[in-house]
Amino acid sequence: MPATGTPHPDRLLPPDPALRPIARRLYEAVRDAPIVSPHGHVDARVLLDDAPFADPASLLVTPDHYVTRLLHADGVPLELLGRRPAGVASSPPSEAEARAIWQRLCERWTRFRGTPVRWWLEHELADLFGVDEPLSAASAERTYDAVAARLAEPAFRPRALFRRFRLDVLATTDDPCDDLAAHAALQAAGFSVRPTFRPDPYLEPGRPGWPAHLTRLAKAADTDTGTAAGLVEALSVRRRHFIENGATASDHAHLDAGTEPLSASEAERIHRSARAGTATPAEAAALRRHLLLEMARCSCEDGLVMALHAGVLRGHHGPTTERFGPDTGHDIPVRLELTRSLRPLLERFGTVHGFHLVVFSTDETVWSRELAPLAGFYPSVYAGVPWWFLDAPDAIRRFHEAVTETAGFSRLSGFVDDTRAFCSIPARHDMARRIEAGTLARLVAEHRLGEDEAAEVAAGLVSQARTAFKL
Amino acid sequence: MPATGTPHPDRLLPPDPALRPIARRLYEAVRDAPIVSPHGHVDARVLLDDAPFADPASLLVTPDHYVTRLLHADGVPLELLGRRPAGVASSPPSEAEARAIWQRLCERWTRFRGTPVRWWLEHELADLFGVDEPLSAASAERTYDAVAARLAEPAFRPRALFRRFRLDVLATTDDPCDDLAAHAALQAAGFSVRPTFRPDPYLEPGRPGWPAHLTRLAKAADTDTGTAAGLVEALSVRRRHFIENGATASDHAHLDAGTEPLSASEAERIHRSARAGTATPAEAAALRRHLLLEMARCSCEDGLVMALHAGVLRGHHGPTTERFGPDTGHDIPVRLELTRSLRPLLERFGTVHGFHLVVFSTDETVWSRELAPLAGFYPSVYAGVPWWFLDAPDAIRRFHEAVTETAGFSRLSGFVDDTRAFCSIPARHDMARRIEAGTLARLVAEHRLGEDEAAEVAAGLVSQARTAFKL
Amino acid sequence: MPATGTPHPDRLLPPDPALRPIARRLYEAVRDAPIVSPHGHVDARVLLDDAPFADPASLLVTPDHYVTRLLHADGVPLELLGRRPAGVASSPPSEAEARAIWQRLCERWTRFRGTPVRWWLEHELADLFGVDEPLSAASAERTYDAVAARLAEPAFRPRALFRRFRLDVLATTDDPCDDLAAHAALQAAGFSVRPTFRPDPYLEPGRPGWPAHLTRLAKAADTDTGTAAGLVEALSVRRRHFIENGATASDHAHLDAGTEPLSASEAERIHRSARAGTATPAEAAALRRHLLLEMARCSCEDGLVMALHAGVLRGHHGPTTERFGPDTGHDIPVRLELTRSLRPLLERFGTVHGFHLVVFSTDETVWSRELAPLAGFYPSVYAGVPWWFLDAPDAIRRFHEAVTETAGFSRLSGFVDDTRAFCSIPARHDMARRIEAGTLARLVAEHRLGEDEAAEVAAGLVSQARTAFKL
Repeated sequence: MPATGTPHPDRLLPPDPALRPIARRLYEAVRDAPIVSPHGHVDARVLLDDAPFADPASLLVTPDHYVTRLLHADGVPLELLGRRPAGVASSPPSEAEARAIWQRLCERWTRFRGTPVRWWLEHELADLFGVDEPLSAASAERTYDAVAARLAEPAFRPRALFRRFRLDVLATTDDPCDDLAAHAALQAAGFSVRPTFRPDPYLEPGRPGWPAHLTRLAKAADTDTGTAAGLVEALSVRRRHFIENGATASDHAHLDAGTEPLSASEAERIHRSARAGTATPAEAAALRRHLLLEMARCSCEDGLVMALHAGVLRGHHGPTTERFGPDTGHDIPVRLELTRSLRPLLERFGTVHGFHLVVFSTDETVWSRELAPLAGFYPSVYAGVPWWFLDAPDAIRRFHEAVTETAGFSRLSGFVDDTRAFCSIPARHDMARRIEAGTLARLVAEHRLGEDEAAEVAAGLVSQARTAFKL
Repeated sequence: MPATGTPHPDRLLPPDPALRPIARRLYEAVRDAPIVSPHGHVDARVLLDDAPFADPASLLVTPDHYVTRLLHADGVPLELLGRRPAGVASSPPSEAEARAIWQRLCERWTRFRGTPVRWWLEHELADLFGVDEPLSAASAERTYDAVAARLAEPAFRPRALFRRFRLDVLATTDDPCDDLAAHAALQAAGFSVRPTFRPDPYLEPGRPGWPAHLTRLAKAADTDTGTAAGLVEALSVRRRHFIENGATASDHAHLDAGTEPLSASEAERIHRSARAGTATPAEAAALRRHLLLEMARCSCEDGLVMALHAGVLRGHHGPTTERFGPDTGHDIPVRLELTRSLRPLLERFGTVHGFHLVVFSTDETVWSRELAPLAGFYPSVYAGVPWWFLDAPDAIRRFHEAVTETAGFSRLSGFVDDTRAFCSIPARHDMARRIEAGTLARLVAEHRLGEDEAAEVAAGLVSQARTAFKL
Repeated sequence: MPATGTPHPDRLLPPDPALRPIARRLYEAVRDAPIVSPHGHVDARVLLDDAPFADPASLLVTPDHYVTRLLHADGVPLELLGRRPAGVASSPPSEAEARAIWQRLCERWTRFRGTPVRWWLEHELADLFGVDEPLSAASAERTYDAVAARLAEPAFRPRALFRRFRLDVLATTDDPCDDLAAHAALQAAGFSVRPTFRPDPYLEPGRPGWPAHLTRLAKAADTDTGTAAGLVEALSVRRRHFIENGATASDHAHLDAGTEPLSASEAERIHRSARAGTATPAEAAALRRHLLLEMARCSCEDGLVMALHAGVLRGHHGPTTERFGPDTGHDIPVRLELTRSLRPLLERFGTVHGFHLVVFSTDETVWSRELAPLAGFYPSVYAGVPWWFLDAPDAIRRFHEAVTETAGFSRLSGFVDDTRAFCSIPARHDMARRIEAGTLARLVAEHRLGEDEAAEVAAGLVSQARTAFKL
């Protein structure tokens, strides 16, 4: 792309001359379809306030751990990328600092070759900001100026971009105690911004802040959380609040996908120990798995789709977590197990009409071995498309090849951008559509699918998130 | 395919113009070679009786869990697909029921896009039944009628199809107590239908019915099974009966591939506990691993090829198992380990002349990591080609890429259809031959193999099952 | 290749007409670049002595377990391939024996179809020895004679080949007690042959010979190894000796990648037990992990790059190890875990300036799941390119696809030939360059990279080992 300065219209489509024309036709038919974004980390308040974005660095570099992690690996300390130490109020950079951060990115831009960050950011710069000069030490100042100038224009404020991106629905990720006032106001203003119920810290009795979380939740739900049953009840109250404010899904991220139940008395015993700070790590994990199962039970009752993102060890580098807090680029995947872990949940709820469980994995090995076989039998299970680390062209191709032979296309979750980088949303969905077109073109060229069928599947994949996430 | 109504002659061959002509030549040279089917689940009695198949639904839908599982995932209860509750005698559907089942399949036929079920069934319908109208709600009645009409013709009775399929050898899977009268009669009638010794339930002291199995076996073998040594002796007697009736292989499916031996006294102690119903799950597993090792010892003595299909958790959804029994589409793979698990067996028997151990896996990760390295050193180990869930075009390609760089082509098992769906056998073997031709064409086009060599390898792969399974 | 008798100039480049011309241009620009070989098993004494290689069999067959293992799988006992029983002095074969060994290879040459051994050896035979007749039973005598004739020429002595191979640097693998006189003499003679510090047996308190190793080390380092602290100090002394003799790296191969520290007192306690032969396997492993962490601490101080090759179970077939010793072709990979195992090490040293940790894996599953995420955050971690069993065209392609989307190209180790087969070095590096060119050509043809950028990356990959291994 930098070779020409303009993103190529056929980019990411298969180069094989027997495939590209088919892929192009399939892609073009879905290119301009509205975007459904069922899971991500955009802050609803940004859209509510609709203030101009501050500067290129604090928009495109500092908050995006995809970007900062590779710069960190290349030797740049996080503080030189705008990260504030934990406990220090997050402050916008001065213009000089913002320019220096941008300069650091540009100087190391070659390090991103082959990564989707390169892809997303160049797509954004070209399509959104009209910047098609390659990033480099030499072009840093000019590209900074160009982006900064655009950010000052009304057309680049968050709500204008929301419309320009053709975002039909955007789901955020929210704390159960959130009052969701921002979402309510946005919906009243005609923006379909939906909250997602994310109770992780309330389900982790082994984490230091857990008792304080219980206290906050008790207040928000006006329900005693001093027992395990009360905790579930309080969460259930807040789920209803979320549903009233447009939520269709809960989202869960834990180290493993275990869902083994405890007896009521054992759950209460561990709950007491954990509040007293005396539960063992194994007990805390057992209670967490029990509570996750309870969340599935709630889903069967209240209809929230349950999304599960397991198998990532958070905060791998303790010193960095201590200094800069979470989400600083060193959450690292571990092996994931689903067959045994989800069995208690699926034996109870796997065939309950209307229950949806969308399962994501950063461990590719479960795709063909466990996830596709589960999604190919249980009406509740949807195979989550590649998430984090794997939300890239080749990985998405591998996912399709690993999953669809067993589960077909109707059991997929639809593409999930999972991003904090608001401006990258169109680039990410466009990438997915191009890869899907390429995958389907191959099936057509191998005479495994008619092109008319492939076009139906391509359109179905774009709207599949509506089905899986009940949007 | 539905776009044209007739399967394309080049289907599944690589679309790359540099590869397809090579692949076509390689495929055409093996297309019409007779079929060797060394492992599958066709019932010998069907061939013995040679009665016409009842109707399209009970032939092509109800008994095939590949088909029913994806319909179940799409919301169709198994009872609406002809499954009878466990304990209820399996009865053929009325014509109305059969038509309703077929209708359900046709209405949901789009759900199978991208799966090998789509591939196999359309191949069968077109090649065998002359039905090339795409399946859909609209065509359900016509396609049912067309298939049903054919099934009434003499040319569509089991033995006629056996000959039409050019089946050189068909191995079935049989209980050690089976008298094998059906096999004997078929062999006398000129059909090479060979039994396979499948002793799984006799080797699983942890399963409820185990003591009853021992009693049945004791009777069949006229040998006391009240000790572990007696059990092995009784199995050995029945192995001889199988060999006398044409068997060349035993087949074993357990949750793991462990083969750690026990001392004789420990084996007897657990055997006693298990008969009394007091063995722990760990003890029962230990005795099973010991018995599996004993089966390998028997193989070294009596020459039966040992086929091992480990790593699948059977009956994942308890309520469905309880209602409909086993093999109802929710056996789900788990991680498999071979290096340590098979070590006790391979240290003892891995280099014994004439011993064959064919190892299959539904966990792709062992292919390059463990299976190819084992098959590339031990003369006894053959790398089983993709089985269940992975017996599909892209998965077979991945298998070839993962295994042959380490083990070459001479250490593979040859294709195994592993099917209960008699009519799908030609379609499955044809699929394998097309994929093999494509894999080899790529090696030729990358100048890693001469085309003359590739042709030799392609022919070798078609007859490889004869070598691996001693047929 | 045998079809034509001459290696095709485009071999291994992608056949797709949209890719091949790009790949060819990228490859040609790096084809003749000097070779940097940062890790391998060539014996420095061979280069020091510079004696002619004895004969084709003892050069190309007997010592190369890639070759002997597949012949063994095909039924040839190792003694018929020139392996001497352990304890028997390794003696060169008589001419008759060498011819017989070569004959056995040639008769079974078809078994190597699809493997890199086929590729490497035919490349060597054609490019180096001018033999382009395909190997077969019929050609065995002629090809033996042709190679043998060449080996007698001065141009085929080790030092002449070193220059002909354009070997800029060759790193060997050496015992910490080695005096490195051979390396010193070679460096004085103008050959950049660098030792690598390989302390494995000194770090394995669970292995039988450990106390004897401590004694030898104490003498070599003139340091008491009777305590754990003393052992680390002695290793540190020898590391300095290695550095003085040109070493830039240490190399470590253990069953797992664990690095959990012990308290000083616990380390000393286990050290005492292990010397007395009373440490449990778990204690011995714990001390080994502690010592590996100490080696990383040393690296932070003395600057040696730390290379880690974990996850292979050595000597799988006990009877063969007993008869023929180690490295006889039955080391078999097991599952590898990095995220948790390396965490203690990376929390302490992962961001230390100048520390390099190069991590290899024979378990592909860690590539995208653990290795790329680690290398994409920690400035110290380099993703080791495919090693052993996976150092083959398709596996290297899979590696690039699995790792570079997360970590880019700058975090790779560069190609490592890891070979004992001196004459295969150019063929191996040539293979890597061709595969890299193909990978990059695909990115260009998919418009993910400009061709000018791809050319920079290709050149960078060839010299990347200099960066990762500080050469």
